[in-house]
Amino acid sequence: MNRVINDPDHVVEDMLRGILVAHPELCQSGSNPRVISKAKPSRQGQVGIVTGGGSGHEPAFLGYVGPGLVDAVAVGEIFSSPTAKSFFDAFRAADHGAGVACLYGNYAGDNMNVKLAMKMAASKDMQIRTVVANDDVASAPKADIAKRRGVAGEIFMWKVGGAAAAQHYDLDGVIRVAQKAVDHCRSIGIGLTPCTIAAVGKPNFQIPDGQMELGIGHHGEPGIEVIPIESAAAMAERMLAPILADRDFSQDDSVVVLVSGLGATPVMELYIFYAEVEQQLKAKGLKIHRCYVGNYFTSLEMMGVTLTLLGLDAELKTLIDHPCRSIGMTQAE
Amino acid sequence: MNRVINDPDHVVEDMLRGILVAHPELCQSGSNPRVISKAKPSRQGQVGIVTGGGSGHEPAFLGYVGPGLVDAVAVGEIFSSPTAKSFFDAFRAADHGAGVACLYGNYAGDNMNVKLAMKMAASKDMQIRTVVANDDVASAPKADIAKRRGVAGEIFMWKVGGAAAAQHYDLDGVIRVAQKAVDHCRSIGIGLTPCTIAAVGKPNFQIPDGQMELGIGHHGEPGIEVIPIESAAAMAERMLAPILADRDFSQDDSVVVLVSGLGATPVMELYIFYAEVEQQLKAKGLKIHRCYVGNYFTSLEMMGVTLTLLGLDAELKTLIDHPCRSIGMTQAE
Repeated sequence: MNRVINDPDHVVEDMLRGILVAHPELCQSGSNPRVISKAKPSRQGQVGIVTGGGSGHEPAFLGYVGPGLVDAVAVGEIFSSPTAKSFFDAFRAADHGAGVACLYGNYAGDNMNVKLAMKMAASKDMQIRTVVANDDVASAPKADIAKRRGVAGEIFMWKVGGAAAAQHYDLDGVIRVAQKAVDHCRSIGIGLTPCTIAAVGKPNFQIPDGQMELGIGHHGEPGIEVIPIESAAAMAERMLAPILADRDFSQDDSVVVLVSGLGATPVMELYIFYAEVEQQLKAKGLKIHRCYVGNYFTSLEMMGVTLTLLGLDAELKTLIDHPCRSIGMTQAE
Repeated sequence: MNRVINDPDHVVEDMLRGILVAHPELCQSGSNPRVISKAKPSRQGQVGIVTGGGSGHEPAFLGYVGPGLVDAVAVGEIFSSPTAKSFFDAFRAADHGAGVACLYGNYAGDNMNVKLAMKMAASKDMQIRTVVANDDVASAPKADIAKRRGVAGEIFMWKVGGAAAAQHYDLDGVIRVAQKAVDHCRSIGIGLTPCTIAAVGKPNFQIPDGQMELGIGHHGEPGIEVIPIESAAAMAERMLAPILADRDFSQDDSVVVLVSGLGATPVMELYIFYAEVEQQLKAKGLKIHRCYVGNYFTSLEMMGVTLTLLGLDAELKTLIDHPCRSIGMTQAE
């Protein structure tokens, strides 16, 4: 295992040390080293945005803390949920008197710990509401949509929720638009290589050389099928098909496309892939309002790519275009 | 070979197609598909900034085209120089009547093609001057500094030159500060895995598992030594030593640190590495003015990291802090 680490059991602590010295605009929140928040908090009376999840997906989750995005994030171990205490401390860091929207992905550990954290918050009379992203079409059939995992579409939920909070929406409003972002969003991934958790020291799943796994999860959860590697054009077609079959994007004003590398995919190849996606979407008559191509939500050093589509109405368009600033995403005024 | 491509012989064309549809702020310049420039050119009378180099280093080079940075870039095949004609066409795209500064890295192919392009430009009475980055301390001894390769320090040369052009420096002034950036800058890299050019289909060099190559070049050029992988702290020490031995950074007002992944290194690990660099620089009494941690200058899917230090005086500090906007680097006003 060739990696740039110190102690494999302390990669998260060591990363957080680097994040904090590199980014004075972020800070450790109170006495909990596993909560990162904005050094300059949002104004009093602004709805707080919280998220959280396992580490190893950088720049997710902590890379989306910043103006127009997330207020505080709970940081878990590699590929495992933050503790309930960390979610609760993130709620406290993000609470500016107008309630907190906890916008997170649908994983068993996160569901359990957010639930516990909400109980702690209720005992302090804090107002917390949640939206759970389940944008991964490969993880369960449409009839079981609530069982689907959250993947890169979570970024749109943070973007839209964070913009709404900055635009003085109340908690009801923030929850409504974050849920709308999830409802209008579908994702799928393809994995080309496995990844290795340093503390484990070997890949916890395998993809044979020359093969790819369609629908793979962000932690190597099994996908739909393992098949021989295809051209970028064929991958785009294979990934767009289940997304477009699952939701009618032709009803929207336009769409936002997010292509994220999983960690080891050269940036060059993300653009090769995006060129195919763009061409195929245009051929289907869909209008692209905006696109994001880069490493936005990764899985350590996995090679592969995820594709996310968000259907826009006028409100979502305004919120997507709102400026923001963070490690993972910066949009000018 | 597991990759997201169409035809291995057309990865550059296919990437450029993706870049252009994803980024309407960039355009193909004239009839040469291998020249990318700003869709909205700099004002008349502003010194033009040109760079260029082989592909496979994304976001370098084309990801640094934008306000406050580069005007036009000549795009080569994977790991090989753009043609003389492409450099010349980039000069034409960047020429707004105040001359062009061609700021590129020290490689035989680039040197030859820039020289030829300058002859073409001279026949058209265009005013072109060059600065050649040679920041890689591992590539030749100090006595032979002109033989050293340019690596990630090129980004500082573009940043400083582009800011100076935006701040109405004339061509003499832009060349002076870009050269100062190179003179004040030192880099070194460590490679943990090789990378594969798709059209070749297998790695063109090897790094044994469990080993790392100190001083490796951006195309796999041999480094100083191949040794067992160490902790991030030891890597930081091993990389800082030759940089600090080569130039006295304690004479500067402060330093800028750039930590770039080579493609497949998880972002988490770049921050783990930066934490060690920061601590060791502080212990030596050096003041860090600003840092950049991310994938700024890559080598396809190589795993590894490069470290670059830039010593600042008052002028360089102002230029480094100037706002800019591009795929690879965005700094707010």
